[in-house]
Amino acid sequence: MGTPERIKEVAGKVTAARENGYDVVVVVSAMGKTTDELLNLAHQITPNPSGREIDMLLSTGEQISISLLAMAIHSMGYSAISLTGAQGGIFTDSVHRRAKIVDIKPVKIIEKLKKDNIVIVAGFQGIDYEQNITTLGRGGSDTTAVALAAVLHAERCEIYTDVDGVYTADPNIVTEAKKIDSISYDEMMELAQLGAKVMNARAVEVAAKYNVDLTVQSSFHDVPGTLITREAKDMEYIVVRGIAVQEDEAKLTIQHLPDKPGIAAKVFKKIADANINIDMIVQNVSEKGITDISFTVPKNDLSQTREMLEPFLREIGAAGLAADENMAKISVAGIGMRGHSGVAARMFDVLARAGINIEMISTSEIKISCVIEKRFARQAARALHKEFKLEK
Amino acid sequence: MGTPERIKEVAGKVTAARENGYDVVVVVSAMGKTTDELLNLAHQITPNPSGREIDMLLSTGEQISISLLAMAIHSMGYSAISLTGAQGGIFTDSVHRRAKIVDIKPVKIIEKLKKDNIVIVAGFQGIDYEQNITTLGRGGSDTTAVALAAVLHAERCEIYTDVDGVYTADPNIVTEAKKIDSISYDEMMELAQLGAKVMNARAVEVAAKYNVDLTVQSSFHDVPGTLITREAKDMEYIVVRGIAVQEDEAKLTIQHLPDKPGIAAKVFKKIADANINIDMIVQNVSEKGITDISFTVPKNDLSQTREMLEPFLREIGAAGLAADENMAKISVAGIGMRGHSGVAARMFDVLARAGINIEMISTSEIKISCVIEKRFARQAARALHKEFKLEK
Repeated sequence: MGTPERIKEVAGKVTAARENGYDVVVVVSAMGKTTDELLNLAHQITPNPSGREIDMLLSTGEQISISLLAMAIHSMGYSAISLTGAQGGIFTDSVHRRAKIVDIKPVKIIEKLKKDNIVIVAGFQGIDYEQNITTLGRGGSDTTAVALAAVLHAERCEIYTDVDGVYTADPNIVTEAKKIDSISYDEMMELAQLGAKVMNARAVEVAAKYNVDLTVQSSFHDVPGTLITREAKDMEYIVVRGIAVQEDEAKLTIQHLPDKPGIAAKVFKKIADANINIDMIVQNVSEKGITDISFTVPKNDLSQTREMLEPFLREIGAAGLAADENMAKISVAGIGMRGHSGVAARMFDVLARAGINIEMISTSEIKISCVIEKRFARQAARALHKEFKLEK
Repeated sequence: MGTPERIKEVAGKVTAARENGYDVVVVVSAMGKTTDELLNLAHQITPNPSGREIDMLLSTGEQISISLLAMAIHSMGYSAISLTGAQGGIFTDSVHRRAKIVDIKPVKIIEKLKKDNIVIVAGFQGIDYEQNITTLGRGGSDTTAVALAAVLHAERCEIYTDVDGVYTADPNIVTEAKKIDSISYDEMMELAQLGAKVMNARAVEVAAKYNVDLTVQSSFHDVPGTLITREAKDMEYIVVRGIAVQEDEAKLTIQHLPDKPGIAAKVFKKIADANINIDMIVQNVSEKGITDISFTVPKNDLSQTREMLEPFLREIGAAGLAADENMAKISVAGIGMRGHSGVAARMFDVLARAGINIEMISTSEIKISCVIEKRFARQAARALHKEFKLEK
């Protein structure tokens, strides 16, 4: 919800659902740039604000949205009431800025629904058992919505966003990309993690766990979106459901690490403690008691990772840390890959024919990811999209 | 607290108090224009937002301030924690936009103080027994501060504001006006109600009830302010403590009202139900079963009052409603007036000598107010200030 005009449009959508006879619970996030503006205020005060106080600050963003949406719905002649995360009974752990929902006690929500209200709940936020306000981090509002849909046994959960749905590839990269009508939770989770930014993997995970049918559609255009559900249509026949490109990856290689039991664990614990998200890890075969380990991190985390790791690596006797920040990850994913061999081979072949070198490979049952040079990423996406006939 | 810079200054003041060995609880209001901006957003949505949703919206203003102040105090190396009104245990009635505090349960405040925190509480807001967020209306933050000081048995309550303290008259009107070192609760309440905008009467009332020593001082300049306490120094000797001018008053006269028992009550109930604050009321002697009643309202409420009253007055047989919107009220107040006769006479004499006609008069034990034409208000204030030697 960006502006007062947008809020009125959202109110129109919500009351239309009410007119269709549904009990409606709406989860909203902060308006447009509110969160950035609040963070900017905080950084004018201190470069290192505490998580608790940042959550106290940021949670006002959704609180503003919910009250304005309630007002807009009132002005259309409907009953509506706004609830903060705390009032909505969204209980979380105490990990500020990226809290996890641990329980929902929707007493007030149910009470207000019974009194014929459209209930508007602040997304992205909750309260811990000490009554501290928490925020859920990335994808938080979607996660709130899905979790509420689960606990309220909702018929479905509709996510309105700035894209029309989930595509076979990013349409900005592959012009032939096609909107997917329905996709399974597993595929969506893989694609979400692989960089399709439509839905956060976390929200899909909750939907899968509680079997909530999710739709993703545009909040701007009134066109059908994508259904995310347990069994997507044509599930077994479609081998590759989509292609994801993650640009802005950095690859780091720890050179000549002494190959002793537990040493890799130490390195990655160090990185995890600093809250840096490592993606792919590849370890070369050990030679003469030393080994190389490569891994990828988001480019933004590169300098922090280096600063933190370099002294530690010297301490444990590694030769050095090489970094390449111009990497991308390209992935293909699809449930159908389970029953079809040869997807990996076709993928490697496509890249080879295009003269693109594969730096790292990682696979799961339903996806294959390759790290390549960033300058080849878009070309690779188009070639793979064509190879797997996703435009059909 | 207007800007991030101001917040840092406030943090400096707060930590200085901590360094002096005090347990500190800080009550803050919203930053600068935040409240106006939020109201503006609401009015872009609907001209008539519900009180509950307005409170949900406005309460974010203080929530932003408390978190930023906590961050600023952290950055100076002190422990601090912010609490919303709800978290601070500020319970109110359910009259949105002008709720009254009915109870304070400072469990969290005390717990956090014991853990050596500077505790920052959002002013102006609370929660009702249904968990709805409420706001306290005018003077709300001061009232929160005083009520907390009372319940926590604080040594004193310091109010930081945009003026240096309480003056014998508005220095913008009377250049000789002098800052008052100490003033009694009763005098301050009279002056507050009479238009000295330094302190809200409501906060002073709570201070008086619980015997909280209050100081009012500038948040910009480090100079001593005014102490508001039970027994001000030289209380009996100083006859007139201060002069207050309330411009922007409107006078209404109900003409030829049938003088039947209960009819005035009906009129004023009608006005009270519309939430219009009537100030002075004067009824003329009844002649031949009809009477005139004059009263004053804030100029802003004039048109609403007329619209509401005129049809009703026709119904009950009054001749009409005359209105004059260019009125002002000038008042002198002081505890010493109790023991000194002749203050009223001196006041009327001063006005008469200046050729100023008195339109209405109202008195209490410790104040006299006269309604005069607005164009004479400032001249009258200066003449009275001189007459009662307040510059000494």
